[in-house]
Amino acid sequence: METDAPASPFRTREQKAEERSAKRRALLIAAVRMFNERGYHATLLEDVAASLGVSKPTIYHYLGNKERVLLECIALGIEQYHRAIDEAREAPGSGLDRLRHFLRAYARANMDDFGRCVIRTGPEPLSPEGRQGLRERKRRIDAAMRGFIEEGIADGSIVPTDSKLLAFTLAGALNWPARWHVPGGELSAEELASRMVDMLTIGLAPR
Amino acid sequence: METDAPASPFRTREQKAEERSAKRRALLIAAVRMFNERGYHATLLEDVAASLGVSKPTIYHYLGNKERVLLECIALGIEQYHRAIDEAREAPGSGLDRLRHFLRAYARANMDDFGRCVIRTGPEPLSPEGRQGLRERKRRIDAAMRGFIEEGIADGSIVPTDSKLLAFTLAGALNWPARWHVPGGELSAEELASRMVDMLTIGLAPR
Repeated sequence: METDAPASPFRTREQKAEERSAKRRALLIAAVRMFNERGYHATLLEDVAASLGVSKPTIYHYLGNKERVLLECIALGIEQYHRAIDEAREAPGSGLDRLRHFLRAYARANMDDFGRCVIRTGPEPLSPEGRQGLRERKRRIDAAMRGFIEEGIADGSIVPTDSKLLAFTLAGALNWPARWHVPGGELSAEELASRMVDMLTIGLAPR
Repeated sequence: METDAPASPFRTREQKAEERSAKRRALLIAAVRMFNERGYHATLLEDVAASLGVSKPTIYHYLGNKERVLLECIALGIEQYHRAIDEAREAPGSGLDRLRHFLRAYARANMDDFGRCVIRTGPEPLSPEGRQGLRERKRRIDAAMRGFIEEGIADGSIVPTDSKLLAFTLAGALNWPARWHVPGGELSAEELASRMVDMLTIGLAPR
């Protein structure tokens, strides 16, 4: 009986790319959790590296300096909000239905590590270009929320109201979990998002 | 014709007490605005003093060290929330009416310098006793909000719901203005509070 040839100890190009991507991802998750817990300024890349048993130059190699790490965490968070916008635009039903669809995804993103980082990051740690970019990308999210509200007002599924102030009020309620402990630890983010959105939107439909 | 006797250049005991109290108040307002704008850690008592043209020892004399200044700002903010609780308890009408009364006062307090400081101050800058005290006083505010909701559910003015999660959701929406720019700069805090509370509570009554 022939023995099978042993697996090659040399990795293929695909395996190397996969491994690199898994390492980047692990470093980003360790970093975003520390940013969220300690704040950007109090987070040291040494500590992020140590939490994965690697050295600081390893982080530099895979991700770059601290501001670049933060920008990448923010980009991953923003992606979720933008995906939420795109999906809600495709959702069937009325403007109110699409608003609710968006708000649920928005609330879930706020409870995710990377979304939480977007909400918690003020302009302070960023360079002028970084600030400008973050402001514009956050503005796109606000504009989309207002758009869903205005669509609902136009199709009669939402009572006429100040769409700007309503968007701010809804966002505020749903951003809060990104900052503080959320009651109901037994509920999943999914379930919590859905209940909060119900509470916030039940009064928007005409009576 | 007799001339009036000139006012005495010596101040009375009452005048001295009044002056002391006005100076303390001016220092506290300068301090709380700087805490809110720059954050506690980035605020230097020297800069607070300089903004009023006085020296740092003057602040020490009137208020004590930086943590004591922060604690006094927090105490002034907390007072407003506790007054809001007391007033809402006395308000006529249903549980929902009293909840709305409380929420409006709560939202107004959040837009005030000292209330804003309560909302923005996390546990980090405080000593263990300071943390404990702040936690308990914030808990009293949360408990009062839940109490108004439960009263409304009991008297049928509010649809049955998870009072803890609803309190968290309402507080989150109304806390947000303490952190970020509020749209509608032309509206007074009073008017803004009232509109936000309307948006948040219109769905709570049974249909």
